[in-house]
Amino acid sequence: MATNLEIIRQLYTEGKEEALRDFFTFLKFQSISSESEHKQDVLACAQWLMDYLIEIGFETELWETSGHPTIFASHLHAGPDKPTILIYNHYDVQPVDPLKLWDSPPFDPTIKEGEIYARGAVDNKGQCFYVLQALKLLLKRDGQLPINVKLCIEGEEEVGSAGLSEILKEKKERLHADYLAIVDLGMLKPDIPMITLGVRGIVTMDVELQGSTTDLHSGSHGGIVYNPIHALAEVLAKCRDASGKITIPGFYDAVKPLSDDERSQLALEFDKINYERLFNAKPTGGERDFSPFERAWTRPTLEVNGISGGYTGKGFKTVIPSFAKAKISCRLVPNQDPHEIGKLVADFIKKNTPEGVDVHVEIRSGVGTAVRSDLSSKIVQAFSQAYQEVFQSQTKYTFEGGSIPIVNELSDASESSVVLLGLGLPGDQVHAPNEHFGIDRLEKGCLVIVRALKILNC
Amino acid sequence: MATNLEIIRQLYTEGKEEALRDFFTFLKFQSISSESEHKQDVLACAQWLMDYLIEIGFETELWETSGHPTIFASHLHAGPDKPTILIYNHYDVQPVDPLKLWDSPPFDPTIKEGEIYARGAVDNKGQCFYVLQALKLLLKRDGQLPINVKLCIEGEEEVGSAGLSEILKEKKERLHADYLAIVDLGMLKPDIPMITLGVRGIVTMDVELQGSTTDLHSGSHGGIVYNPIHALAEVLAKCRDASGKITIPGFYDAVKPLSDDERSQLALEFDKINYERLFNAKPTGGERDFSPFERAWTRPTLEVNGISGGYTGKGFKTVIPSFAKAKISCRLVPNQDPHEIGKLVADFIKKNTPEGVDVHVEIRSGVGTAVRSDLSSKIVQAFSQAYQEVFQSQTKYTFEGGSIPIVNELSDASESSVVLLGLGLPGDQVHAPNEHFGIDRLEKGCLVIVRALKILNC
Repeated sequence: MATNLEIIRQLYTEGKEEALRDFFTFLKFQSISSESEHKQDVLACAQWLMDYLIEIGFETELWETSGHPTIFASHLHAGPDKPTILIYNHYDVQPVDPLKLWDSPPFDPTIKEGEIYARGAVDNKGQCFYVLQALKLLLKRDGQLPINVKLCIEGEEEVGSAGLSEILKEKKERLHADYLAIVDLGMLKPDIPMITLGVRGIVTMDVELQGSTTDLHSGSHGGIVYNPIHALAEVLAKCRDASGKITIPGFYDAVKPLSDDERSQLALEFDKINYERLFNAKPTGGERDFSPFERAWTRPTLEVNGISGGYTGKGFKTVIPSFAKAKISCRLVPNQDPHEIGKLVADFIKKNTPEGVDVHVEIRSGVGTAVRSDLSSKIVQAFSQAYQEVFQSQTKYTFEGGSIPIVNELSDASESSVVLLGLGLPGDQVHAPNEHFGIDRLEKGCLVIVRALKILNC
Repeated sequence: MATNLEIIRQLYTEGKEEALRDFFTFLKFQSISSESEHKQDVLACAQWLMDYLIEIGFETELWETSGHPTIFASHLHAGPDKPTILIYNHYDVQPVDPLKLWDSPPFDPTIKEGEIYARGAVDNKGQCFYVLQALKLLLKRDGQLPINVKLCIEGEEEVGSAGLSEILKEKKERLHADYLAIVDLGMLKPDIPMITLGVRGIVTMDVELQGSTTDLHSGSHGGIVYNPIHALAEVLAKCRDASGKITIPGFYDAVKPLSDDERSQLALEFDKINYERLFNAKPTGGERDFSPFERAWTRPTLEVNGISGGYTGKGFKTVIPSFAKAKISCRLVPNQDPHEIGKLVADFIKKNTPEGVDVHVEIRSGVGTAVRSDLSSKIVQAFSQAYQEVFQSQTKYTFEGGSIPIVNELSDASESSVVLLGLGLPGDQVHAPNEHFGIDRLEKGCLVIVRALKILNC
């Protein structure tokens, strides 16, 4: 196996200069999906990728969506008895503001101390490019791939994936695969490979409680009317008990506890001192009966993300406000249906709003279901082994408390078992000025993909 | 008595033209206390009032304050065996914006259908002027007043009375009186005279709960940290129980229940349908065990006047905010000390803020103690009788749920028993465009003052 890796490494080194040139070309496209003035740049980037994929031997399709197109590419010549992997990346990037905080132009890639500085360097052009490099090297060496490979490279990840989401059903057959690799994540330290075993789902809603139609004088009306801020505070307080448990009936019904096996494999140790230092925050929230990482990774939450009502400026106004508002989000774990949970929360809020106060709850679109990889699945084990070989260090497992709605949809549409991985690092300045990705990680990523495809063929 | 009133009425009619001319001169001063560009207008108005008072026979003093001056005037020639009344008015007015909504210029008094339109027509130049007219007529007819009279005419009522408040202690002796009449209030209907038996006190505070030093991602940190919005909602919810009672220990300790006598004399009937129609609000707040007017007039309250935290704009941001804030006010009833209540509330909030969240409560300056007139006091009975004679209708009693901090301070400084009265009407557009006051009310007000001074001499 070492020999095998050595051969790939040599091939990589021989083609490195050309690869860097190609990567820089990829990085120069200003494919900012959220800014309409860059629509043509996004399209040009997609076109360049299509050409690149054709050149290395893939068949390509440009899938039009309501927004920016998705690139679908496939190389299905390993044979019908071989498994198929679907690899997800995206070619769109975040805006670059504030531009003046960049040390070098965001679309003019610059190398400094082994790191490539450019918007998209890591998220996600870098992680996409090492996948392409792996495929290119394998095809160059063997003329074929160990298993069948499909690629789904999206152009709207940074704006919510609405376009791809809309066409997933009609593309179901094309996307069908045994395995799905989402190559858009990271690890905590550069020398310890990491696989993300799950992301939480999400449902968000806007809540408005209204009393009178205009603000009232709190002297003349205080004690007569039901202040909607009080009503809202009381309803929100009722959502959880003294132990931090959500009290909404049915909220935890679908939640499955961690198995002892899962618990033993998870890095659940929480460094309280480091956390407090990093975020200036204490881990005193959530459910008392669970440890901090269990709470963030394996338990659903209900958080108020914003609250407003009455006079909040300088000085003081003695008003009883007409209305009070809150924005609420719930992070969900596997088996929880976002729509169902949204309805449970909305019903609870409505039921607990006092008489004399009108209530309106609007569940927002853009819900997401939680994703959880099976630790013992072939796809997780294959990448775990590939990582270990390349990094010469045991693969660790983590979870992401946040939500990536498209992951679950893609997993559903392709009927595949999923793994979430990547070589991002906490210091990469993702979404920020001076985003960067290590040249060494480009190579390591390429080697991991090569090895994983080989292992999946065993 | 009818004869007595008739003589005064005749005198009033004889001097009416001159009086209206003088009143219009008074109204033309742009004595807007809140706008620094009108400082000279405020001063000119004070100077004119001083001259007017000297002309009718009063001794005057201009009391300099940190803001606009207060006019003090006295006529103490009734003899040492006669009681002394201190009458409070103010000569400053509210701003006039939005000017375009005025049908006639705010400082060019205009008569339309028996009403005088001008800024200050009712609040408080009109109510001040009928006091002056009464004194002028009495002095003109008798060369003396039935009792000793002191006048305190303030220039900063519309901006919070800070200047007068600051000098009250040093002017204690000058202000000393048996009775204090605050002539700055109103009645509900034009034909039913009304005395306000009390105003509530007030204490206000700013509350801030802080978790992390910056907003955190609700996916990565949701379930780990204590969301300060939750903490605030929970603390606010704990401030009252299911029956609407404030749960803060000691909050009601000083509150005395209404006596049966007081209860029987109060117009406590609450017109629910009319209230809902007027304010588009339902009377479902406050303490369940009390009727709406009892709650607003005779019970203390705790109201959140403003709340804020997290993202409250369009769309959604899944943040756990760094902090959440609330503005809280308590309306107080007699015997409740604002500072003491403020401290009780602050302590309760601090005690109930969960671990991991910092709390800061700042009690604001500008507190006020409640004022309650004794229904059986000589001053209340004298004005009640005077009203009844002039209006030929029984005097009714009401309360004001709002707060006028200077009333209590003035009552304390002068060591006098207080009555709150006036001829304002709900439709007078006080503080709004097209403020107006009836010519008939100028006369009635004058007669009421004349009769009350006479009765107080009995």
